[in-house]
Amino acid sequence: MRRPEATFLGIGGELVSGRREERNGPWLGAQLGPLGVELTTRVLVEDDEDRIAAAVGAALASGCDLVVVAGGLGPTVDDRTRQGVAKALGVPLVVDEGVLAALEKRYRDRGLEMPEGARVMALLPEGAEPVPNPKGSASGFVLRHRRTIFFGLPGVPAEFRAMVERSLIPRVRRELAGSSVLLAGALRTAGLTEVEVARRVGEVLPEDPRLRTGFYALPGEVEVALAARGDDEADARDLLETAMEKVAAALGDACYGRDATTLVEVLGRLLRERGARLGAAESCTGGLVAKRVTDLPGASEFFAGGIVAYANEEKTRFLGVPEALLDRCGAVSPETALAMARGARERLGVEVAVATTGIAGPGGGTDTKPVGLVYIGLTDGSEERVTRHVFPGDRGTIRAWATTIALEQVRRLLLGLDPLGEVSEAGEDRC
Amino acid sequence: MRRPEATFLGIGGELVSGRREERNGPWLGAQLGPLGVELTTRVLVEDDEDRIAAAVGAALASGCDLVVVAGGLGPTVDDRTRQGVAKALGVPLVVDEGVLAALEKRYRDRGLEMPEGARVMALLPEGAEPVPNPKGSASGFVLRHRRTIFFGLPGVPAEFRAMVERSLIPRVRRELAGSSVLLAGALRTAGLTEVEVARRVGEVLPEDPRLRTGFYALPGEVEVALAARGDDEADARDLLETAMEKVAAALGDACYGRDATTLVEVLGRLLRERGARLGAAESCTGGLVAKRVTDLPGASEFFAGGIVAYANEEKTRFLGVPEALLDRCGAVSPETALAMARGARERLGVEVAVATTGIAGPGGGTDTKPVGLVYIGLTDGSEERVTRHVFPGDRGTIRAWATTIALEQVRRLLLGLDPLGEVSEAGEDRC
Repeated sequence: MRRPEATFLGIGGELVSGRREERNGPWLGAQLGPLGVELTTRVLVEDDEDRIAAAVGAALASGCDLVVVAGGLGPTVDDRTRQGVAKALGVPLVVDEGVLAALEKRYRDRGLEMPEGARVMALLPEGAEPVPNPKGSASGFVLRHRRTIFFGLPGVPAEFRAMVERSLIPRVRRELAGSSVLLAGALRTAGLTEVEVARRVGEVLPEDPRLRTGFYALPGEVEVALAARGDDEADARDLLETAMEKVAAALGDACYGRDATTLVEVLGRLLRERGARLGAAESCTGGLVAKRVTDLPGASEFFAGGIVAYANEEKTRFLGVPEALLDRCGAVSPETALAMARGARERLGVEVAVATTGIAGPGGGTDTKPVGLVYIGLTDGSEERVTRHVFPGDRGTIRAWATTIALEQVRRLLLGLDPLGEVSEAGEDRC
Repeated sequence: MRRPEATFLGIGGELVSGRREERNGPWLGAQLGPLGVELTTRVLVEDDEDRIAAAVGAALASGCDLVVVAGGLGPTVDDRTRQGVAKALGVPLVVDEGVLAALEKRYRDRGLEMPEGARVMALLPEGAEPVPNPKGSASGFVLRHRRTIFFGLPGVPAEFRAMVERSLIPRVRRELAGSSVLLAGALRTAGLTEVEVARRVGEVLPEDPRLRTGFYALPGEVEVALAARGDDEADARDLLETAMEKVAAALGDACYGRDATTLVEVLGRLLRERGARLGAAESCTGGLVAKRVTDLPGASEFFAGGIVAYANEEKTRFLGVPEALLDRCGAVSPETALAMARGARERLGVEVAVATTGIAGPGGGTDTKPVGLVYIGLTDGSEERVTRHVFPGDRGTIRAWATTIALEQVRRLLLGLDPLGEVSEAGEDRC
């Protein structure tokens, strides 16, 4: 059985330009998913009759089962959705007497006379039925075009949502949903490449038209998204859970969490369980480790703070890294990474400290210390670890990689897992 | 003459569902506007070959002058953009030997063997030319389809932007912008709203079909993009410079720089001129000020480092903020902001120090100290300033605003300009 698909169109120049984030479409997608209808395309279009007509025409031509257009149904001159839809369908706009009467009543009830300009809101594409708006004056409409159900709704979120819940969902349930249910989940990994994650997932998940996978990569992280379709909720749940377990096993200890869990949330939980706090000493990441940790509300429960020791002088002054060591081994060395971690642990008075030092570029690289080289130092007082990495990309990407891998190394230390990357011997007599 | 139009397609399930906000399209629109090319439609599509083919086909059929598709060019099975584009065009995918050689070299340079799965990144739709990627491994491509210029680019923002700037903009300028000469410039402001910037620009720039303006807003900053069209280079230059001067005058001291200049670059220049170094003491921004400054290569010349004192204990231990003051006035107070700045200046041994303390949310707000409340403290040893702000948005937006405004306050102090926002009296006897 082919799975029903939906296209959403949001009308408004401010949505195309991103001045306002379009949120009706994502919300609609989240409502349709459990009904087994997948939102595959979201289109943002200027308030221009020809552009709207082109986008509506393309959505209808794509043969999807449901098209929902939101916005541009008000009374002003830049509300062009009715006209664009009528043009795409090749039908005229006609006055709906029921809508007109309701509009007039709405004004009368508030002791107002209906302005002439508001009459345009009673126009519907020929053949459409009105969709009542319980929260505002702009009526919506619904029509059938061949096999497609087509809804036109106002873009005001409260009105859009109310009309989706009262009119669209019941109609979709009746005519499209069939009996299947779609459930989604995700698994999150750190330290593996996207290619490696995809290879491992491919090995354990057999081709199954009821299962879909997606990959989403950030520097140092890959998310595996899974969606399972079943005949009913229990069936879909069963399929999803079985797939999640298989994928989690294939990803092994690189998998740090499920669904929307972040690496920092996992770290926070592990640290709170031990009653321990983390501190950071940052050189090449320049504050990014602290920033990432404090992106999480409530991070102060497990994060004491950080020292951004960007210059050598501050590595000595704030972290107690001996000048002689910096001179002999260099700021980008396993010895300095370890000394920074030790200094942060002691001076911040924390149980666990992580340190980064490296060459983020674009300048400063040499043959033996190339751009991308980063040492990560780690100590919890009993165990000390230093690892060496060469991260890819430009300055921003290298810094983002170093931050993610530094946090992942903390997770691995707390769980007693081997560190990622190449373990460096940090011995001053080496320099 | 009809104005050239562009359609943007962003590929990825996470963009359709809104799990991630699509920002490449809006940024592209801001770049194209001044060139006289209008982004009229932005389409977000799942990583599905047929869906991508349908969306690409619709964009080409709409007859617009430029189509840009971003994302889905990586090496994994859910990277389906090449296939979707080839299907829409009815052409096969062919190996580009130059791209393949560059890919192999890229892996070799990092001491790695190219995995078999990566070869797919050397496939281009027949008839396309490769577009080099200066920041990553996925090549882009460009082709002509009747009158439409079609670009396929990676979705990673740093890669997308670099490729737009190096390859797309020059091509658009050559082939779409017409025979006259079009020159673009930008003015950058901090601390003003987009509405206020637009109002001031509107007052000084008369309607002129040869001049176009665009606005691109980030938390705390607004960029004004200007484009001038002249009969020849001298004519366009003259028009652009006159407009830039008028706009700069209207923006006054809120305008910190031209073109691609960043606020941190301006700060760096001002600090180097004085032989001074900056230090940061961060609570609510949690490392973001230091991160933003060290995004700039060579920041160590004027940035000593920072202290992320997220918990009260660290404000006392590292910045010398008296416990009694924290108890009496609270961590989010003008008194604490000033004490943090003084402590950072002294302990980091810098000439200028900036401090942030506030409530980034989502929790922790009260009637008198709402979410978004941030105090910024500043001292250069002779002058001390504390300002109070209530920033809009969610946790991430509030932190981004606080960071930009903190840096802007440093610029204003160095230039002897009045601070932004409401000046707070910091007196311990007030608490």
